[in-house]
Amino acid sequence: MKNYAIAIHGGAGTIQKGSMSPEKESAYRLALQNAIDAGELVLKSGGSALNAVEMAIVALENNPLFNAGKGAVFTNQGKNELDASIMDGSNLMAGAVAGLIGIKNPISLAKAVMLQSEHVMLAGNGALDFAKQINAPFEPESYFYTDFRYDQLKEAQKTDSVQLDHNIKTEKKFGTVGAVALDKNGNLAAGTSTGGMTNKKFGRIGDTPVIGAGTYANNTTCGISCTGHGEFFLRAVVAYDISCLIEYKNFTLKEACTKVVMDKLVKLGGEGGLIAIDQHGNIELPFNSEGMYRASKKENAEMFIGIYRD
Amino acid sequence: MKNYAIAIHGGAGTIQKGSMSPEKESAYRLALQNAIDAGELVLKSGGSALNAVEMAIVALENNPLFNAGKGAVFTNQGKNELDASIMDGSNLMAGAVAGLIGIKNPISLAKAVMLQSEHVMLAGNGALDFAKQINAPFEPESYFYTDFRYDQLKEAQKTDSVQLDHNIKTEKKFGTVGAVALDKNGNLAAGTSTGGMTNKKFGRIGDTPVIGAGTYANNTTCGISCTGHGEFFLRAVVAYDISCLIEYKNFTLKEACTKVVMDKLVKLGGEGGLIAIDQHGNIELPFNSEGMYRASKKENAEMFIGIYRD
Repeated sequence: MKNYAIAIHGGAGTIQKGSMSPEKESAYRLALQNAIDAGELVLKSGGSALNAVEMAIVALENNPLFNAGKGAVFTNQGKNELDASIMDGSNLMAGAVAGLIGIKNPISLAKAVMLQSEHVMLAGNGALDFAKQINAPFEPESYFYTDFRYDQLKEAQKTDSVQLDHNIKTEKKFGTVGAVALDKNGNLAAGTSTGGMTNKKFGRIGDTPVIGAGTYANNTTCGISCTGHGEFFLRAVVAYDISCLIEYKNFTLKEACTKVVMDKLVKLGGEGGLIAIDQHGNIELPFNSEGMYRASKKENAEMFIGIYRD
Repeated sequence: MKNYAIAIHGGAGTIQKGSMSPEKESAYRLALQNAIDAGELVLKSGGSALNAVEMAIVALENNPLFNAGKGAVFTNQGKNELDASIMDGSNLMAGAVAGLIGIKNPISLAKAVMLQSEHVMLAGNGALDFAKQINAPFEPESYFYTDFRYDQLKEAQKTDSVQLDHNIKTEKKFGTVGAVALDKNGNLAAGTSTGGMTNKKFGRIGDTPVIGAGTYANNTTCGISCTGHGEFFLRAVVAYDISCLIEYKNFTLKEACTKVVMDKLVKLGGEGGLIAIDQHGNIELPFNSEGMYRASKKENAEMFIGIYRD
């Protein structure tokens, strides 16, 4: 049996030390801890990396602090449109959903697409038809509403800017949540979930629901979940790029993460970060932005929780 | 100046010799020739690979023989929902659209997303809002209608099967069109366009509009456009995989194509093929299905047109 490991993120961006109240920082740390706990509970009892990833992300989706599920940002039309994807590294099965309105836990719907449909990616009203058919939990608009996100929309609409979960006055933040896990059987899984960009128009889809860009898992290499300026992550096929550097160029996980996040993405102009675990249980949490909400835990080790660049 | 090159495909699948009338085969060959001509016209006069790819795909979209643009298959609800993507290998810019209804040339809209929006991927009604804003040409439902595709829907609905552009009685065909080009300046580009699957439900998105899966282009490696059972191409991140094998493992284009199409995809169960051109102007047109509508042309060489496995 392998030692299990889990890592999560709650988004990356301009998160400067001192810009948050101690109370808010404590709330974020507690939320990250709770999500790790939810995933670890699955892994400790011998459960699958896939289920651990789902449970950790459900905890983050249910917490209004993060731009995913409850607390998602508003589109230009005042809606919360949610995207998510998940991948099982043991068999390269994957599921993804995009442009969802009213789904409580998009990550669980992505998993259902993987396990209960013959498809990988479903979008919009069609995806909601699938959700109804499998009795996925819906919530009313009011469930997703938070004053904080609504104020962000009003602020963004003043300048008609599309905001990447960006509070103009205090922080630039790419709101996404994600988890990667290695279970006792040596299986890797990864998942990502987001509410996208404040004031977004045109049914924009970022990297979150795209297998290979925002999410990838393969037992022979690693599991990856990304957060950042999605357009750059799409163009750079970031998650699969890290897997390929390991598989084809024999890079270590650390070397691959450094090359992609600190070199290739920077040259392209893509701000953000990712979480990664390889088949040996190594964990990397690289980001080229000022901060990234992140946490990790290896079996028999202490939990790590970070927000700023330390 | 480099010698230009262009390759196109019109879908892969069970296309057996003798299963088509000589008239139909001639019509397909003429359509492929016209599409190559449209792309070559751009390249010959020193135009960009990006524009050559667009023009070749526009010719295929406008031809009702292929499952893209006019002549696209019908969804379960009797609609024609179109997906497309395009990528410029000179700067890794990309554009994609998914779930479009009523857009005459999805490939041109994908190019407009790349050049005129700050996004990479737009879907559904939001993408149509963008199309209206830039005055993209729309067509009424009747424009996309063909008896052949409508009969396919009725046939598929009898058994409630989701058809990958599959005429149960005569052929199994993955209807997609695509083009890849290398221009005189040494720039590569690739694009793909499709009507998806007959009788599809749930807003299914395949590999066609996904950068890295159905389409990829990078001047330092190659340009790729895929056609096949999209779910497998998504899970295998096919187009970027070929680029990575060239970049990270020093494979030739031929070696990379053989590894991915004839080995990795076959093991996963993914039927289909792709077209590829590398920075040296080498062209590969591999497929693991019985046939693939395909054509290619190098500067100062004769045009190749193929349908069956020769």
